This record gives sequence, structure tokens and C-alpha cells, in this order.
Amino acid sequence: MRANLGFFFLSSSVNLASIRSCVPRATVRFTPLLLQRHPSFLLYKVITTSVHNSLFSKLHSPARIGITLAVSASASSMAASFKPEQARVPPAIQLPTPPVTKFKIGLCQLSVTADKERNIAHARTAIEEAAEKGAKLIVLPEIWNSPYSNDSFPIYAEDIDAGTEASPSTAMLSEVARLLKVTIIGGSIPERSGDKLYNTCCVFDSEGKLKAKHRKIHLFDIDIPGKITFMESKTLTAGQTPTVVDTEVGRIGIGICYDIRFQELATLYASRGVHLICYPGAFNMTTGPLHWELLQRARAVDNQLFVATCSPARDAGAGYVAWGHSTLVGPFGEILATTEHDEAIIISEIDYSQIELRRTNLPLEKQRRGDLYQLVDVQRLNSQ
Amino acid sequence: MRANLGFFFLSSSVNLASIRSCVPRATVRFTPLLLQRHPSFLLYKVITTSVHNSLFSKLHSPARIGITLAVSASASSMAASFKPEQARVPPAIQLPTPPVTKFKIGLCQLSVTADKERNIAHARTAIEEAAEKGAKLIVLPEIWNSPYSNDSFPIYAEDIDAGTEASPSTAMLSEVARLLKVTIIGGSIPERSGDKLYNTCCVFDSEGKLKAKHRKIHLFDIDIPGKITFMESKTLTAGQTPTVVDTEVGRIGIGICYDIRFQELATLYASRGVHLICYPGAFNMTTGPLHWELLQRARAVDNQLFVATCSPARDAGAGYVAWGHSTLVGPFGEILATTEHDEAIIISEIDYSQIELRRTNLPLEKQRRGDLYQLVDVQRLNSQ
Repeated sequence: MRANLGFFFLSSSVNLASIRSCVPRATVRFTPLLLQRHPSFLLYKVITTSVHNSLFSKLHSPARIGITLAVSASASSMAASFKPEQARVPPAIQLPTPPVTKFKIGLCQLSVTADKERNIAHARTAIEEAAEKGAKLIVLPEIWNSPYSNDSFPIYAEDIDAGTEASPSTAMLSEVARLLKVTIIGGSIPERSGDKLYNTCCVFDSEGKLKAKHRKIHLFDIDIPGKITFMESKTLTAGQTPTVVDTEVGRIGIGICYDIRFQELATLYASRGVHLICYPGAFNMTTGPLHWELLQRARAVDNQLFVATCSPARDAGAGYVAWGHSTLVGPFGEILATTEHDEAIIISEIDYSQIELRRTNLPLEKQRRGDLYQLVDVQRLNSQ
Repeated sequence: MRANLGFFFLSSSVNLASIRSCVPRATVRFTPLLLQRHPSFLLYKVITTSVHNSLFSKLHSPARIGITLAVSASASSMAASFKPEQARVPPAIQLPTPPVTKFKIGLCQLSVTADKERNIAHARTAIEEAAEKGAKLIVLPEIWNSPYSNDSFPIYAEDIDAGTEASPSTAMLSEVARLLKVTIIGGSIPERSGDKLYNTCCVFDSEGKLKAKHRKIHLFDIDIPGKITFMESKTLTAGQTPTVVDTEVGRIGIGICYDIRFQELATLYASRGVHLICYPGAFNMTTGPLHWELLQRARAVDNQLFVATCSPARDAGAGYVAWGHSTLVGPFGEILATTEHDEAIIISEIDYSQIELRRTNLPLEKQRRGDLYQLVDVQRLNSQ
């Protein structure tokens, strides 16, 4: 059995023997990692090759244990370093060089009806138009093949993993991505998987291959009496994992609508080196005017990356009235392109060199205080 | 010797004996804490009463060790709980009941000159005016007794801890707070302490007592060529600790200007139960229009609390031209009161019942995914 026991952040004054004494019955191998990124602290990866009769052997085999041993030294040595790299646990991945620096994005703010076949054909036409206008990355709205309601989700849901016939919506996305040679962030559709339903975003590459599937992590359960009450959790199950996908147009993090309210997710994506976060989302007439643009700009400026959102067009007669206002925001929190609430195809250029520029202007990553706060990316930590 | 060894988050399937086997040479006492807030996990405080020949005895006496043992169970049991309380480490403190629910706040957007005596007298007059208009909490701007420049900081700096004669600026604040029976968030002034300079905010209660001193944690070092370049770190030293102060008008977190860019600080304050964050701040003509209001509203809506900012008035002839626009934001991200760039005293009502209302409308704290991300408040963790 080989079990990853996680990471120790250790003062260099603590020797390895003393660590071994902490887990004395385990055979422990210490691998120094990333030493140059930890001037005052050493990061060790601890791997047991045999584990007997200890805390760890009492756990079930697939269990993963993350141990963070934070040793704060005296105030004087703390002053010597604010440990910005420790503000993210594990430390942030360096921004990867994207395959392209400049390209056009297309945001398809679509009208959505109760006719699924029409919705699929309509989305296809919009994708074709965006591609014709030069978009290499095309984003669709949240729930674009179905009305947005708990009554509709079970009826319109598709079993994405069961193949083309079981999922005409994603079959169309795959085909059109391949034919037009574009990357598609397929908004979201209700997904059926076993006895569960999810609000799911599929990402297709330019060969039509399904690259990633993001299931909305934070379900939309809100209650503003007299304004908007909705409980997605009545019908939907929340996803289990953040989604980062390397595409031909850069590293992209995915969130769906309510996911945007949780700043930790965007920050976790930034620490994983994403260039762009795409949020298909259908904010409403209460929270839309107050929060939709605000949250997009905040995620962009705090994390110094691009944010793209795509909403359905507004249908004042629908059970759930969407705010619209699909938008592209740059890494300085600046709005690069937006629209009102009617149907629209927004075409705008993304220039990833702006990320480096803004991170040079305001070197936030180097200024964070890992001695005071640390954001832990639990799954990335456990996978290392 | 009694050393606090921190906290273990443990699956209930792990028994105490197995923990003892991990630190076999230490005498360990386990105190179950907050069990009701951890339905699926147990939180133990581990206290050694005697420590020999182990990892811990190798550390210097004042060192504190925080151990977080995160045990992720299998996917099926993860689905059973998203562990929202673990999204903050230690778990968030419940919002305390404030001493008052409704009161008036006064934000004094002051003109600042090179004449320190005039600045002190001018600030006093403004505080008196705000109190006369009913303000129980009065906020001053960042660096209100001195021009904002690295040349000025050493000249205008005061030794706050050395008493009245060494610090006429804070002596005035103390006196006027006592005479008018108001709480004052004293903007900031350059502070001299030993051979170091800080950008420091003093909080006085209505008896004139210095309740807290916040030294700007994140120094303003930015470089936007042709627009704004400033390096506070040329002259100033950064503070070592977040500041939360219980006042007669609620629990208040303090940040100074650039501190607002770091969302972790605001979130950490929220997890400590603050009702209001006050940011004295002097944004500039480049980042002001783009980011000042955005960041205030983002901190308020993400953390569902009040945010108040106070800037100097704009002086187009100054070396550093402030944006102005002091503002009060409510826990729904709504602007309750604001102003342009001229001198102004903003009086506005704060109603803390709005915090509970918005947290009921959007129960973000219960919806966070502690299984995916955790924000660690390092000092609070280590102090427990």
C-alpha cells in the first residue's frame, strides 16, 4: 500500500528525525519540493511505503489524509517574511503560457423556449454565427435547452454519458464544435445520471471531444420573500468538484451561476493557473441589477484574470425571468463587452497579455499575507 | 510547560487511542469542542501537559504549532455533507448580538493640507459636526494629519504609544471622543514606533480610551507606468495582525486602503463575527474610478456585512490626488450613502438587522463547500 500523507510546511530548524518521531511506526520517505519558492520554510512531501499499527492504518484504504503542520516562528522572524506563497495551499501554480495570446470569444445570449428541438437548432445557428464572426471560443447560457424550473429539469434532462441518442443537446455541441473547429463552453443543461439530476456544463474541444463536465457546485437555494424564491436542491444534486480544463484557447475554470457568489472558487481557480473563468448564469430581476456585474468584476479584479458570463435572453413571460447582460470582464475589472437583455451574440477580443500586465502593475500574489490567511484547495492538496 | 498543539478535525471513526499513537511520547489531553457544529466530524483540542523527546520539544518555547488533520472520507460520505462549517478554519464565530441595532455613522471626507495643526483642528471641527448631527460612530480618512507622501510620513509621524505630547493627533481624537461620547475610527496617521514607521488607525471608545490600533497590513506598492506609481514600503513597515474591536456600536474590523484589495482579510473578519468593516482609504485617480466602489460592494456582498470607507477630499494640486467618494455599503452590496470628491460629512443610518435578513435570504455560510475550500485564519487558529 502506498498512501499519500500530504504536506508538511516546516521551519528549517526542525529536522527530519523529529518528524519521523511523530509518525514512528510508519516508514516515511521525505521528498523536498519547491524549495526555491519557500525561502524561509521547507515543503516536504511525506509518503509512507508501509503503514502499520498507526493512526493511518485505521483509515479505510481510499481515504486520503492531508496534514498541514504550520509552524509559526517568533514575531521577529515573521517580520522577515510574510510568506505570500503560503496564502494558497498548495502554493499557486504559475500561470501557464496559453496556446494563443489573442483570440475572439463569442457569448451567445439566447432566447430559450419550452420547445427543446427548437432550442437546440437555435443554439446551433447562434454558434455558427459566432464562429463566422471569428470566435474561437463560444459560450452558451445556463439551461439553454429547457425552461429554468424545477418542473422542467427532470423532463428536459439528458444522460450525457450515455451517448449521442440519449443527449441530443450535447451531440449537437460536439458536432458543431468539430465542424467549425471551435471550443465550446456549452452553457448548461439538466443532466440525468442514475437517479440524480445535475445542472451541468460540457466543454467541447475543436475536434468535438468532450473535454470536461462541470456540475454546478453551489445550488441556487435563495429566499427573498416577495421577490425571488428558488430551491434548486428540490430536484438537483450538487457537483463534487471544481473544473479546470486546458483548451486551445487557454486554461479555463468553469462555474455555473450561483457558483459565482463563492469567491473561494474563483480564487482556487486562479491558484490552479486559469486564464479565464466562464460562468454560464441566469441571474434574476432582483439580484441581477444589484449583483451580476458586481460579482463578475470582483472575481476578475481580485484574481487578475478574465471572466466571461453568458445568460439566457430575457423572456418577461417566463416563470423565471433572466436578467441577461452577458459580459466579458478583463483582469483589471474592466468591462470589455456587454449587452442588455435581448438576444445577442457578443464578439470580443481576449488578450491574455493583459493578465501579466495587471499582475505586474499590482503584484497582489507577492503581497498576500500567508502568515495571516491561507486558502486551502482541498482536492488539489489531497491529490498531491 | 503547557503547549497548545492546536486542533485535529477527525472522522468519528478514528478513535482517540490512534491519535495518541501519533504523538506517543507526549501526555495528551483531548477536549471535545463544538460538537454540535460538526455533525460528521469531531473537533478536538489537543493539549500536552508534558512533552519530551518528540517533535514538539525540538521547537522553541514560544512557537505554536497548528495541526490540521483533514480526513476526507469516500465520495459517498462526502456527498452526505459539504461541511460548510469547515470552509472557515477555525469555524466561523456566530455573529454576536450588537449592543445597538440602529445608529448613525458619520464619514468625514476631509481636506488635508501640509499644516498639521490646521489638519488636527479641522478634523476636530468635522467630528463635532458629525456628532451634532447624531453620529455615534465617526470615521476619518487615511492619513488625515499629513500629506500622503513618503517624504512626509517621517516628518508627520507620531509616537502614539508615548502619550499625549508625542501624539497631538491621537490626543485630540481621544479628547473629542470622550467629550462627545462617540466612538471614533481615527482614519490613519503615520506612526513612529522605535525605528519603524507604520500607517496606523486608532480606535477610541466614547470614554476616550484607545481600544485598538491597526497598522496597515498590505502596503501600497503599485506601479502603473504613466498613471500611478507608489511604494509605501520605501518608508513604512507593514502591520502584523488583523484588527477586530468590540465597540458600543458593534464589532468592527479595520483595514486601511490597499488592505481592501485582499478579500481574504474581509472574509477573515466575517468569520470573526464583525458587523462592519471600516476602511479609511485614499484611492487615486486611476484605480479609484475602476475599483474603489467595486471593492467595497464586493466585500460587503460576499461577506454579508456593512462596509464603510472614508477618503480625504480631492486636492488636484497635491502630489497624490485622492479619488474621494467615501461610501457606506449594506450587506446586500447596496450603496446606502456616498459623495463625490469634495469635502463632505456623510451621515447615514446603519441597521444591523439587515445582516441577519440578507443572511436568511442568501444563506451563503450554510452553502459553502468546506469539502472543497477552506480559509484558514492563521492567528485565530494558533491562539486557540
